[in-house]
Amino acid sequence: MNGRFITLEGGEGCGKSTQAKLLSSYLQSKGIETVLSKEPGGTPEGLVLRQLLVTGDKDKFDAVTECLLYYADRRNHLTKVVWPAMEQGKWVISDRYADSTEAYQYYGYDKRIDYNTLQNMYKIVAGDFKPDLTLILDMPPEVGMKRSFAKAANMENKELRFENRQMEFHNNLRRGFLEIAKREPNRCVVVNADTDIETLHKQIVAVVAERFGI
Amino acid sequence: MNGRFITLEGGEGCGKSTQAKLLSSYLQSKGIETVLSKEPGGTPEGLVLRQLLVTGDKDKFDAVTECLLYYADRRNHLTKVVWPAMEQGKWVISDRYADSTEAYQYYGYDKRIDYNTLQNMYKIVAGDFKPDLTLILDMPPEVGMKRSFAKAANMENKELRFENRQMEFHNNLRRGFLEIAKREPNRCVVVNADTDIETLHKQIVAVVAERFGI
Repeated sequence: MNGRFITLEGGEGCGKSTQAKLLSSYLQSKGIETVLSKEPGGTPEGLVLRQLLVTGDKDKFDAVTECLLYYADRRNHLTKVVWPAMEQGKWVISDRYADSTEAYQYYGYDKRIDYNTLQNMYKIVAGDFKPDLTLILDMPPEVGMKRSFAKAANMENKELRFENRQMEFHNNLRRGFLEIAKREPNRCVVVNADTDIETLHKQIVAVVAERFGI
Repeated sequence: MNGRFITLEGGEGCGKSTQAKLLSSYLQSKGIETVLSKEPGGTPEGLVLRQLLVTGDKDKFDAVTECLLYYADRRNHLTKVVWPAMEQGKWVISDRYADSTEAYQYYGYDKRIDYNTLQNMYKIVAGDFKPDLTLILDMPPEVGMKRSFAKAANMENKELRFENRQMEFHNNLRRGFLEIAKREPNRCVVVNADTDIETLHKQIVAVVAERFGI
């Protein structure tokens, strides 16, 4: 596949979707065709799964069910969006991917799912395929939560299932993303997201330009 | 767990749901508390998944996505319905379970999914748990298909995604169920479903009464 797959990861309110759009525009300005996508819900069927996953009681699913739903969404996303676009030489930018499942379900909830079970699901769904680059947008959870709640108040955001959790959870989540970055330093780059939109965008452009020689 | 888990399996129109109800009534008449359930869709969330799975284009999902959705539904069914009921000593009768996924996805579609991948999913979802008894309702596919189409015409059944397949598929499906029965003769009993409702019910009662000493 000639395209590239870039994922943006991080906790609530860290600015992933805004930065994904800005990165896409930047790449397009360099003549690169891009596809902007997200998980969960990067496909029409995935939107049904997203609704199941992000609304309602926070304990509505046990960990294995929840991870299987995320991985079903992921497989559909890969086969219908990511891989076909990459085959055509396009660069796919995804707001969240597998690291989010690991950070939330393994680190965030303090190992409520077995690590090997998660790895096993990843292998079933993606084999050896990995993102070419993962940007981890890091900030103190208090800052992200404040942003996320402000956004929800403005937009009547109903996807508050994850935001309603305890601060301890969000601290574990942050630690999780940083552990993943430490474990896979070639794939992952941590950027400081506790700053304004333009400064964060510049950091991201610097990483992407250097990584892919743009 | 003190309860029992009995699954009914077989191709389209073989009479599983009718027989599940009759079996449940029989067990109740013997003083046994029963729960009548089904897959996919044995839970409220599962009904959403069932809608995704049984309607629309027959090729809307790739095999891995489809199996993950069945297994997510299965895990939810086990954790919310089957295991809690069994803990209370109830007998759960399920219209379809894992053998259907294997028969349809592996045998029916001629190995479009890797066998080990399916086994892997089963382990993730159920570990070593298995039904106490699986009744395989066997009949020539032509007979079942005729029944299934007649039912659909009467009931405006929209779940025709699987019925619309070729006869070869249904022959493979039947062969699949019989192979599973041969592989696990202690768990599975094949009954001749090409007969009237009452005769089939009597066969099933004879098997269940003998197996569980009722």
